[in-house]
Amino acid sequence: MTKIAVLGYGTVGSGVAEVLDVNAEHVEDSAGDKVEIKYILDLRDFPGDKHEDKVIHDFEVIVSDPEVEVICETMGGIEPAFTFSKKALESGKSVCTSNKELVAAHGPELVELAKKNNVSYLFEASVGGGIPVLRSMNDSIRHERLDSITGILNGTTNYILTKMDQEGADFDSVLKVAQDKGYAERNPEADIEGHDACRKTAILASIMSGQFVKHEDIYTEGITKITGEDFEYARELHMAIKLLGSCKREDGKFFAMVAPFLIPFDEALANVNGVFNAINVHGNMLGDVMYYGKGAGKKATASAVVADVIDIVRHKGKHIDWNMKNVPAEVASINDDVRNFFVRCDAAGESSARELFGDIKEVVCSKVNGEFAFVSPEMSERDFAEKFEKLSGAKGYLRLL
Amino acid sequence: MTKIAVLGYGTVGSGVAEVLDVNAEHVEDSAGDKVEIKYILDLRDFPGDKHEDKVIHDFEVIVSDPEVEVICETMGGIEPAFTFSKKALESGKSVCTSNKELVAAHGPELVELAKKNNVSYLFEASVGGGIPVLRSMNDSIRHERLDSITGILNGTTNYILTKMDQEGADFDSVLKVAQDKGYAERNPEADIEGHDACRKTAILASIMSGQFVKHEDIYTEGITKITGEDFEYARELHMAIKLLGSCKREDGKFFAMVAPFLIPFDEALANVNGVFNAINVHGNMLGDVMYYGKGAGKKATASAVVADVIDIVRHKGKHIDWNMKNVPAEVASINDDVRNFFVRCDAAGESSARELFGDIKEVVCSKVNGEFAFVSPEMSERDFAEKFEKLSGAKGYLRLL
Repeated sequence: MTKIAVLGYGTVGSGVAEVLDVNAEHVEDSAGDKVEIKYILDLRDFPGDKHEDKVIHDFEVIVSDPEVEVICETMGGIEPAFTFSKKALESGKSVCTSNKELVAAHGPELVELAKKNNVSYLFEASVGGGIPVLRSMNDSIRHERLDSITGILNGTTNYILTKMDQEGADFDSVLKVAQDKGYAERNPEADIEGHDACRKTAILASIMSGQFVKHEDIYTEGITKITGEDFEYARELHMAIKLLGSCKREDGKFFAMVAPFLIPFDEALANVNGVFNAINVHGNMLGDVMYYGKGAGKKATASAVVADVIDIVRHKGKHIDWNMKNVPAEVASINDDVRNFFVRCDAAGESSARELFGDIKEVVCSKVNGEFAFVSPEMSERDFAEKFEKLSGAKGYLRLL
Repeated sequence: MTKIAVLGYGTVGSGVAEVLDVNAEHVEDSAGDKVEIKYILDLRDFPGDKHEDKVIHDFEVIVSDPEVEVICETMGGIEPAFTFSKKALESGKSVCTSNKELVAAHGPELVELAKKNNVSYLFEASVGGGIPVLRSMNDSIRHERLDSITGILNGTTNYILTKMDQEGADFDSVLKVAQDKGYAERNPEADIEGHDACRKTAILASIMSGQFVKHEDIYTEGITKITGEDFEYARELHMAIKLLGSCKREDGKFFAMVAPFLIPFDEALANVNGVFNAINVHGNMLGDVMYYGKGAGKKATASAVVADVIDIVRHKGKHIDWNMKNVPAEVASINDDVRNFFVRCDAAGESSARELFGDIKEVVCSKVNGEFAFVSPEMSERDFAEKFEKLSGAKGYLRLL
């Protein structure tokens, strides 16, 4: 019997209890041991809840109880989750978490601390919700030289973009429907400005680079500037518009960014719709591998936390190692990153566009009038920004994958 | 240092050597130990090959050498691979393999033998080539109650179906091009009749059911009857045609089958094109998770074999457990399986169709004349077969996912 504690009895924390209850037999088969919740830490009480007698309000009880071997930190936010996680690891308890803010901010430090104490710090649920991508990266493809990771990492924005595309609706009205349905927060900034995808990109980039990629170092754009007209043009180009978090190694540099991209329909990522997430990893031997599933949701995310608990139970007395050193990674400026850009300007801007950008490909869309739109030649972000600044009647742009 | 032997220096076996050479540093980081090939068993010699001095012709040398801890069986076929694998496991050596014929025929028995000898039998590369699906099923989602697995498991047939769709070409001409390009074998029967997909379905079904699902018990249809007209209708239905291997638990019964299916475009599997494979797994907590990647190819498949070697090195002295008992699973007859069917018959068959099938939905396609086509109500395979037999001027049918 392995006894665990759950910190935070909110959506994910109560989901962990539900997965352990409903799938008890499967959990035991997988872990090779029964797993039982001994404590639930929360500020609130939960009268009538199946586990109400396990709810406590003092973390010290948990950390000082030698019976507790694993702690599921499902609180979210930096503090007190960070302090609790450190204390747990220092007390010889393994920690698994769904807390992407904390993992993005202090993951490598907590992995290091876990190693020092011969316990584990696992965080499968912090990226892609229920998608079993991080363990697979660590266990099944860690021997690959990863060239790039590209992911649709935020379900809210993918839902909004999918609806804008399918229904021809504008951003604000789709956001409102998403909020009414509970797919978007009342304060949606973290999602629509790309901050959430940025945290997850930082975690993936840290695993890929083997060093600590700070989310502050990742250039991030959200989806608020995307319009219905952009989707009309995208269809002409046989492309989808998706918010991507990406990192790649190129010419000895390590790039990471979050921004909306135009993706050809025949790329698998272009067909990931609604609240689904997907992460495409390119290895030097494997080529492309993609992991797809629900990027959020109580039960899916909780299932990923339980998978971490099981991994810890299977490896009792052993540190589960990550190649993610607590040294800052050097992230190159996107200024040097090279790609094609899709650009829209006033109809009168055509000659300015041809003069500035040279060999462009015009994009004609019968549903949008009074504009000139084109795809630029390959150029660096720096070059592009300079030219776009000078473009007469410039209206907007999107990057091409 | 862990010393291994490779049995069979063909496409996959030489790929294993290449992955270990090119990615030596990453392999060591992942395994926590250097991995070195000590022997390569093959009937041939390979003068000039980097590893020519390791090539031997006598398996007894390998099995009796206590230095060899892991054997990569990349020979294919049942014998002598089966005998060699048994001897290796009985000698306390772990075995990993890409040999789907052998795993489908004797996997549970070899897992049992591995357990008895406290070594491991791993077979990631036997399903989906490089896609890291089996380890993930065992490590990350084994605590889920799996309701269904549905996969595009054969790259050759998926390439043929994709080309037929995109180019409007007929089966025979696309098969010829595929053969010329090396995507299809000169003797393509194992692929196009569904036998290869059936082997892989048997392996997935055994993992899902926890028992031995024999490939002979899986109803299997290939893709040879599919025509260009079927794709015209599929487009009208906003569906793709894919050869699927599937298993599911329903009403206490376990079903498994291989057949071409019509899949709505908004399902992720419908957008898996060309030589790519994908496996969708539905768990009771997780919902849908999909694994996508190259289903074949030297380096991708070899990378999966190396992942198994690494898993074994990480767990030296420990049996890596599968929930796959060596007792026969009861596979229900597809007669009781219920779904909708798409049916084509002569134009004159319309009244017969309406009389037999009741509440049908006509499918009109401007590009196909002189026919009547429809989607049936939900009905059992048994009912359908009886009615289709009686249908006047019946031309063909496809199942709907």
